[in-house]
Amino acid sequence: MSLLIVGSIGIDDVKTPVASQKNLLGGSASYASVAASFFAPVRLVGVVGEDFPPGYCALFRKHGMDLEGLKVEKGKTFRWSGEYLLDLNQRKTLSIELNVFERFKPDLPDSYKNTPYVLLGNIAPSLQSHVLGQMTRPKFVMADTMDLWIHTAKPDLRELLRKVDAVCMNDSEARELTGMTNLIKAGHHLLSCGPKYAIIKKGEHGCLLFADGQFFAAPAYPLREISDPTGAGDCFAGALMGFLTSADTVSFQTLRKAVVYGSVLASFNVEAFSLARLQTLDQTDIEERYTAFKVISRFDDSDSRPAGRKEKPKSGRKRPVASR
Amino acid sequence: MSLLIVGSIGIDDVKTPVASQKNLLGGSASYASVAASFFAPVRLVGVVGEDFPPGYCALFRKHGMDLEGLKVEKGKTFRWSGEYLLDLNQRKTLSIELNVFERFKPDLPDSYKNTPYVLLGNIAPSLQSHVLGQMTRPKFVMADTMDLWIHTAKPDLRELLRKVDAVCMNDSEARELTGMTNLIKAGHHLLSCGPKYAIIKKGEHGCLLFADGQFFAAPAYPLREISDPTGAGDCFAGALMGFLTSADTVSFQTLRKAVVYGSVLASFNVEAFSLARLQTLDQTDIEERYTAFKVISRFDDSDSRPAGRKEKPKSGRKRPVASR
Repeated sequence: MSLLIVGSIGIDDVKTPVASQKNLLGGSASYASVAASFFAPVRLVGVVGEDFPPGYCALFRKHGMDLEGLKVEKGKTFRWSGEYLLDLNQRKTLSIELNVFERFKPDLPDSYKNTPYVLLGNIAPSLQSHVLGQMTRPKFVMADTMDLWIHTAKPDLRELLRKVDAVCMNDSEARELTGMTNLIKAGHHLLSCGPKYAIIKKGEHGCLLFADGQFFAAPAYPLREISDPTGAGDCFAGALMGFLTSADTVSFQTLRKAVVYGSVLASFNVEAFSLARLQTLDQTDIEERYTAFKVISRFDDSDSRPAGRKEKPKSGRKRPVASR
Repeated sequence: MSLLIVGSIGIDDVKTPVASQKNLLGGSASYASVAASFFAPVRLVGVVGEDFPPGYCALFRKHGMDLEGLKVEKGKTFRWSGEYLLDLNQRKTLSIELNVFERFKPDLPDSYKNTPYVLLGNIAPSLQSHVLGQMTRPKFVMADTMDLWIHTAKPDLRELLRKVDAVCMNDSEARELTGMTNLIKAGHHLLSCGPKYAIIKKGEHGCLLFADGQFFAAPAYPLREISDPTGAGDCFAGALMGFLTSADTVSFQTLRKAVVYGSVLASFNVEAFSLARLQTLDQTDIEERYTAFKVISRFDDSDSRPAGRKEKPKSGRKRPVASR
């Protein structure tokens, strides 16, 4: 099974309170597809300029990606420059140069059109819809999005939501899009917009997965140090979809695990700038951290009888009788 | 096994965006002890004025509490009035009248001094220390605190932390006390201040439990509506300590469950003003919600082999070889 990923591919300059690095591989599709590649073969759709470093193409190839959908256009690659504030939860965009990305129209190679799993990474909703329109009955489509599109292209985004199986965004974006401050209400509102599954990413607080009548809350991995938060959400979405593709089973149970694998890859990615940490990652690292997620979120192994009854019997006193 | 709880007992006026109620039973000890009473017998330590409604004493008695440590002093009961803003995460204190609470000095009846479990509810750290000083080798002591004491009595609070087994506070308070924005660092810093266990409450994002080399993250119960957040943290602490008392086993495993029972009682309590919801609660409600916490936080039941391997075998392609 293959996974099609569309999104931005760029060159980033990133500044954090402790370091700054230039000319990094960036963009939603870059992060998502490298993270996904640990689980399933990726077909990448994106555009770069003639200045795109050959080393970055080699990196994509090393991760086994099909690059037929990666266009190289005359001009310069999309560039983003940003700075993280002290707590790393807030960032300032210092500059954006759209360059070849400005005219990006993701037309798919024929060989991509029957890809069963599709991640519409964070780009304009009209472009996400354009990709979806070219697909032949995909099995599962997830769209990621961001505040920019909620502000500038809400009707397009709403139209897209009617056509996808799952949507993924962060907490502030879910609040903005739905107008609801309670995230549980916001998640259910997203479901009412079309998708069968909604995922709300909460950064250091983990994430929430919603489906009709079902709910799952994943913690974040307890990291003491974060080097560079860039691309965490994209890695989350990529690994989630990569796992789902490899499992080739769409169910709430599989999605729960997929969300945790998404959290695993996101947690690794923030340990270094750009995609550096994912270059040194192997399957053992991934499975170990997945197991760590089990350890930190499990609190009771007794499933066959009411919880809490395993403890020493109470002192025999009568419980207060609840009345009125 | 009994649990001693000391804290404030007051009369509250509470306003939320949708309703407002006056002359409610309030105070950290009231919330904590009613929540704890579902698990273990409570010995209450506090002070009220002559105006304290007899109905509220009856409520304490209905919950099986030992009230020998509840002093009735000449004068009026502590009063608090507050208003919650639109998202219910922020509140404004409209007025405080300390009244008899101003001269509160919690001297314990002799019968209380050998109580094995102790919850030092949210009052001035010097009073918490004063209570602790009268106890005969308790098995387990947890202190709750709040921002007020971090601002006005930090040395007292630091001294208290050296003497307790566990400390419990919310995320913004943990950040303020430790000066660390990363909550994982903050939790470990709290451990370095003395307690063997540190608990950081995060409201809608659940809570974190820290011990040396061990970590547990509990989600919050997914509530769509919150009527009145007052006392949620006190109910959490009370139920946590109540469960621990009934289990009479102090271990990380028991504390994990205790944290979830704390979350269960806190989630019920915010469903109505003051302690109204806890008056209609029974053991079945509690066990059902505890089971719901298992359902929403569990993602993988395979513990005996590496996770993710249960899924359909991958397509046989070679995984990207991670290098450098």
